[in-house]
Amino acid sequence: MKNTVRIKNMGLRGVPVADTKISFIDGLKGILIYRGYRIEELAEKSSFVETAYLLLNGTLPRTKELEQFNAELVASRKLPDFILKSFRNWPKNAAPMDVLQASLPLLAMADPELMDETRDANVRKAIRIIARMPAILAGWHRIRNGLDPLPPDHALSHTANFLWQLHGRKPDVHMAKDLDVCMILHAEHTFNASTFACREVVSTRAHMYAGVSAGIGALSGSLHGGANAKVMEMLFQIEKEISSEDDIAKWVKQKMDRGEKMMGMGHAVYKTFDPRSIILKEICRRLAVETGHMKWYRWLSRIEEECHREFERKGKSWIKSNVDFYAGLLYAMMDIPVDLMTPMFALSIVTGWCSHVIEEKFAEAQEKPVLYRPEADYVGDYCGAMGCEYKSVDQRG
Amino acid sequence: MKNTVRIKNMGLRGVPVADTKISFIDGLKGILIYRGYRIEELAEKSSFVETAYLLLNGTLPRTKELEQFNAELVASRKLPDFILKSFRNWPKNAAPMDVLQASLPLLAMADPELMDETRDANVRKAIRIIARMPAILAGWHRIRNGLDPLPPDHALSHTANFLWQLHGRKPDVHMAKDLDVCMILHAEHTFNASTFACREVVSTRAHMYAGVSAGIGALSGSLHGGANAKVMEMLFQIEKEISSEDDIAKWVKQKMDRGEKMMGMGHAVYKTFDPRSIILKEICRRLAVETGHMKWYRWLSRIEEECHREFERKGKSWIKSNVDFYAGLLYAMMDIPVDLMTPMFALSIVTGWCSHVIEEKFAEAQEKPVLYRPEADYVGDYCGAMGCEYKSVDQRG
Repeated sequence: MKNTVRIKNMGLRGVPVADTKISFIDGLKGILIYRGYRIEELAEKSSFVETAYLLLNGTLPRTKELEQFNAELVASRKLPDFILKSFRNWPKNAAPMDVLQASLPLLAMADPELMDETRDANVRKAIRIIARMPAILAGWHRIRNGLDPLPPDHALSHTANFLWQLHGRKPDVHMAKDLDVCMILHAEHTFNASTFACREVVSTRAHMYAGVSAGIGALSGSLHGGANAKVMEMLFQIEKEISSEDDIAKWVKQKMDRGEKMMGMGHAVYKTFDPRSIILKEICRRLAVETGHMKWYRWLSRIEEECHREFERKGKSWIKSNVDFYAGLLYAMMDIPVDLMTPMFALSIVTGWCSHVIEEKFAEAQEKPVLYRPEADYVGDYCGAMGCEYKSVDQRG
Repeated sequence: MKNTVRIKNMGLRGVPVADTKISFIDGLKGILIYRGYRIEELAEKSSFVETAYLLLNGTLPRTKELEQFNAELVASRKLPDFILKSFRNWPKNAAPMDVLQASLPLLAMADPELMDETRDANVRKAIRIIARMPAILAGWHRIRNGLDPLPPDHALSHTANFLWQLHGRKPDVHMAKDLDVCMILHAEHTFNASTFACREVVSTRAHMYAGVSAGIGALSGSLHGGANAKVMEMLFQIEKEISSEDDIAKWVKQKMDRGEKMMGMGHAVYKTFDPRSIILKEICRRLAVETGHMKWYRWLSRIEEECHREFERKGKSWIKSNVDFYAGLLYAMMDIPVDLMTPMFALSIVTGWCSHVIEEKFAEAQEKPVLYRPEADYVGDYCGAMGCEYKSVDQRG
C-alpha cells in the first residue's frame, strides 16, 4: 500500500471500500438518492413502509407487493413475551440506546429462521427487525415509567402505531404523517459509521441481528446519532444562559470563538447543504405554528443563521445545518423525550442497515469485500527480534 | 484517492488505518508481540491477569500494582442481580454468543461510572467487563441447564474461578493453568475484524460497552471466532464418514479437491506459521495424554499433516494451523461444550478489545483517527440529475 500517509488516521474518509446499489450522496450538489430516487421525491410522495421496501428490494413495489410487505410488517409488530418480561428487571434509568442494543440479540433468540442464511430469509429477518424496534422502544419507555406496554393497533400505519404504543393515545393524522416523512429522511445514508459497523460485523458471516446491534452501538456516540439530542440540550442551555433572544448571536459567537463544536451543524460528506435538513426545517416550522412552539423554532433558525455569519466572518467556506439540527425539536413537539431522540434515528436507519447487511452478504463475488481486517502501524515497544526481556514480578524495578 | 482499484472489495487488507502500541504481528516470521513481549515469553512466564494489566496499561505491573489489579478484578466478579434474573426469561436454546452480545449493554446499565469518559474510568470499566464476562457465560450455561448460577470463589484465580462457576467443581490446578495460557494466547491480535469493530464503534464517542458488544457480534461469525467450534464439528463429521483412521488422508483430499475451506487452517496475516498454534498443540497433546483423549489429538495432527501435503502437492505455498485449530479440542477436554467455544475466545480477547477502545479514545490527537466513515462507489440506478421518476403505486407497470 503506497498511500499510507494519506489514509492513516483519516477515519477512511474518501476511501471507497465497496460498491453499493443502495444510496448515493453528491456532497457538492447536496443530492441524496435512495435506489435511484431523489430524497425530495420520496419525502413528498412515498411512505416510510414503501421506502423500506425500496431500500430492501431495490425497486418500488407494485400494489400487491406493497400490500403483502405491509401485512408482514404489521403481523410482526408483536414482541416476544420474554423481552418485555426482561425489561421489567432492568434499571429504569438505563440509557434507551443500551436497551435497544441489548434487544437485538434478544430478537435473534426469538427468530425461528435465525440459522437460515438465504437472501429471502434475511429479508424476512429485516421485516421483523423493522417492525419490532418501535415496539421495543415504546415498550421500554412505558415500563420505565411504571406503565404497562400497549399492544400494537393493526389498523394504524407503522409510524402512527409507534406513536400510539409510546403515548397511549391515537396520534393526530397529520403529525403521524410528519413523523413518517422524518423517518424516510433518516432511513439510509450510505457508509456512515453505524452502517459500516453493521457491514463490518456481518462480513464475518455473523447474523443480521449481530450487525444491527453493532450499528446501534455506533449510532449511540455523540459524534454520530447522538447529535439530535445534543441540539435540544444546547437549546435548554442557551435558555439558561441568555436573558433575551437578541443574545443568541453573542452566545453563538462566543461558543465558536472558544472553538467548540456546534451540534447539528456541518457534515462529513455534504459540502453545500444537507437536503434532508431543508425538508425537516419546513416541517418543523409548520409543526411549531400548529403546536405553539414558535419560540424554539425561531431560536434554532437564529442559531443556524448566526453560525453561517460567524463562518463567513472567519473566511471559512461552509457550515450548514445537518439532519440532526431540526430533528430534535420536531420530536420534542411530538412529546418524544430527549433521551429517545437518538433511538428515533435508529428506528428509521435500521431500514438502511438491514439493506446493507443483505448487500454485504449477497453481492456478487467480484463486488463483495472479504471480511474487513485493516492493518495498523506498530509504534510501541520493540526490543529486537526476541522481544523485550520478561523479568519476574519481584525483579521489576 | 488514487488507489481505488487496489483497495475496494479487499476488506481493507494491507491498509493501515491507525497507529497502535498494543500489539504487533510479523506474519512472515511468525512473530506475535504484546506491548513489546513475545507471545512465547508471556505464555511461559506470565498469567492471564498480568497479561491483561500489560495490555491495558502498557507495562508489566510491579508487585503492588499486580495485587491491586487482581483485587479489583476479584471484587468485580459478582454480577448485578438483574442480569441473572433476566437470563431466566430467555429461551434456553439461545446462542451463547447472542447472550454475551446482549449482556454488554446490560453491564453498561449497572456501571456507576458509565458517563465518566476519563482514561482511569475507562480502565475501571475494562476491569469490570473482563471480570464479569466469565460469570455471564457460566451463569447462562447453568441457567439453561436448569441449575442455579454459582457465586464466585474469591480464593481462586480468574481462570480457575471461571471453571468453578461453570462446572460447580473445583478445577484441577494444572488444567486451570493450561486454560490460563490459552487465554493469554487469545487475549489480543491487532486489528482483526472484531477489534476493528470495537474501535469503529467507539470512534463515534460511544461508550466501551457499546464497542465490546459490537466486537462480540463480529467474533460470532464463522469466518472469525466461530472457527474453533467448526473444527470440532469437522471432527465429529469425520468420525461419522470414515471407517478407520487411515481414511483421514482421503477425506481431507476429497474435501480440498471440492474447494471447501478447511476450518482452523491458514490465516489472513501469518504466512509462515501461527506461533499460538504451536503452543496450543503442545498443551493439547499433554492434556490428551492426561485425560485419555489421544485419539482426537492424533486425528487433528493427522488432518493438519494431510492439509500441508495436499497444499504442497497442489504447488500452493502455505497453509498451517491457526489459533482455532487446537483450541476447540483443548476446551472439549476441559468439558466445555462446543457452543461455548467461540464465547471462550471472547472471554480472552475482551482484554485486547478494551485496550484498543482505550487507545482509540485516548491516543494523542495526531495519532488518532477521526470517526471511521469510508466511502462506497455507487453502481445502482441513476436517472440523471433529478433522479428516477417516482410513479404512484397504481401507475407502476
